[in-house]
Amino acid sequence: MGPAAAAELALHLEVAATPMPGNVDRERDAAGLTFGRLQAGAVGARPGFEALAEGASVGAGLERAVAGAAGAAGENTAFGACLLLAPLVAVTPRDGPPDPAAAGRAAADTTVADAVAFYRALEHADVAVPDPPASWDALDARRGAEAVPAVRDRGVTLADVLARAAPTDRNAAEWTEGFPRTARLARRIGADEGPLTERAARAGLHQLATEPDTLVRTRHGPEVAREVRDRAATLVADGATAPDADGEAVRAFAAELVEREINPGTTADLVAAGLYVALRRGERP
Amino acid sequence: MGPAAAAELALHLEVAATPMPGNVDRERDAAGLTFGRLQAGAVGARPGFEALAEGASVGAGLERAVAGAAGAAGENTAFGACLLLAPLVAVTPRDGPPDPAAAGRAAADTTVADAVAFYRALEHADVAVPDPPASWDALDARRGAEAVPAVRDRGVTLADVLARAAPTDRNAAEWTEGFPRTARLARRIGADEGPLTERAARAGLHQLATEPDTLVRTRHGPEVAREVRDRAATLVADGATAPDADGEAVRAFAAELVEREINPGTTADLVAAGLYVALRRGERP
Repeated sequence: MGPAAAAELALHLEVAATPMPGNVDRERDAAGLTFGRLQAGAVGARPGFEALAEGASVGAGLERAVAGAAGAAGENTAFGACLLLAPLVAVTPRDGPPDPAAAGRAAADTTVADAVAFYRALEHADVAVPDPPASWDALDARRGAEAVPAVRDRGVTLADVLARAAPTDRNAAEWTEGFPRTARLARRIGADEGPLTERAARAGLHQLATEPDTLVRTRHGPEVAREVRDRAATLVADGATAPDADGEAVRAFAAELVEREINPGTTADLVAAGLYVALRRGERP
Repeated sequence: MGPAAAAELALHLEVAATPMPGNVDRERDAAGLTFGRLQAGAVGARPGFEALAEGASVGAGLERAVAGAAGAAGENTAFGACLLLAPLVAVTPRDGPPDPAAAGRAAADTTVADAVAFYRALEHADVAVPDPPASWDALDARRGAEAVPAVRDRGVTLADVLARAAPTDRNAAEWTEGFPRTARLARRIGADEGPLTERAARAGLHQLATEPDTLVRTRHGPEVAREVRDRAATLVADGATAPDADGEAVRAFAAELVEREINPGTTADLVAAGLYVALRRGERP
């Protein structure tokens, strides 16, 4: 399976990973999204991944993936995951996994043109972003393509944009830090056993327990984000990710988060990126 | 979304359609298959659908789709659905749905080379087929590529092969009859409301209630196949496919069939084909 197919499959497997607290999984729709729309989004993203595998710039490939996903699904389904997958696919060799550090270097080398494509990609999506600093208003992600003139005037690269977002967005932090969470999730998935969707769910719970999800922090504030992390940490400490765990406690937590409309979507994005690296390392569903 | 993406999405949506008695769905793995492997199979089939959309012969496109699916999933996941989708994708115009009757004509026009590709495709799959007539042994589908010399010697086309299979295999009957079940399922899905995965599940129960599933008949005999059809018909008569049905009775039936290892896989293949036509008519998840 080539890089583009693996990237698409990573999106599908993340959606099927169950339980993924607060996210769509096999047992629950969530965040207003149906399972079928997420499947359509993954299918629609593939031509963007093909372009990245064939040498398109990170920004152009990202824009095509996001536009394809949103066009197929009728709404944004995959912006964050595509943001992580774009540099990973771009640096993936034909016969092996991407080096996360190399993806970090590709991210650092992005240009003004990549930033312009990123803002155009935002036009295709309705992405939750925190309030920007006042001095940054012209580049507010919510401005979408309206920000393009300011991007060009100031010579802002996509690396610059994501460096400013990194303190408040874990996906952006992956770009600036060389994809350490992606690498850790891929290692955990690779070391685990059983169907890949179950390994991905266990790795996702570990990530949720490690640091507050930034989409939850943006939408619900730092206290709720810490509460979710602490609850996940307690579940992990109580053995919920052991191979023989019955999963009932995690399922109850998952149902509660959906009920409260708390969606740890950044954690899901990171799991998709970890699945991609694991698939390229030869892991199979 | 182009024909190839729609064909792949149809496979994904069929897997996610729930409840699909005796088949993998969101609530159950079945027939020894996991959800993730079916997702991988759908992703792997796409290059075959791309080839068909770009003018490949039905046999060559089928072989590529089946080989790609089996390579990605590690086992056969999509032979029957690909057999239906191949002529449908081949006759799909750029901006609209395929005419099922045109797919029937394309099927009728297949050649000896298509038959050779079909037998090679069987090599990639472990397909359940009924015992062939004694005179037909050299062309037994279980012979796979070993049958190729006999195919060439006798000048057997793929249409010939499937015409012989039609009495015992509903997918083959679609080829010889001009895809009437596919057309009926697409109409039912289009006339229904709600998420496409739910519409597909309701349409699948109707199909299961209409005639015995031929994969069940091949594996478990005609009495079991009739029993499954009659049970499905009773559920439909009792309102199980009404929009406000609670679905509990169908879920219990689904769990029972999985428990008994009864897999109405031909019905699932027909649902995938119906979903494809519905997607090309503009239906969205």
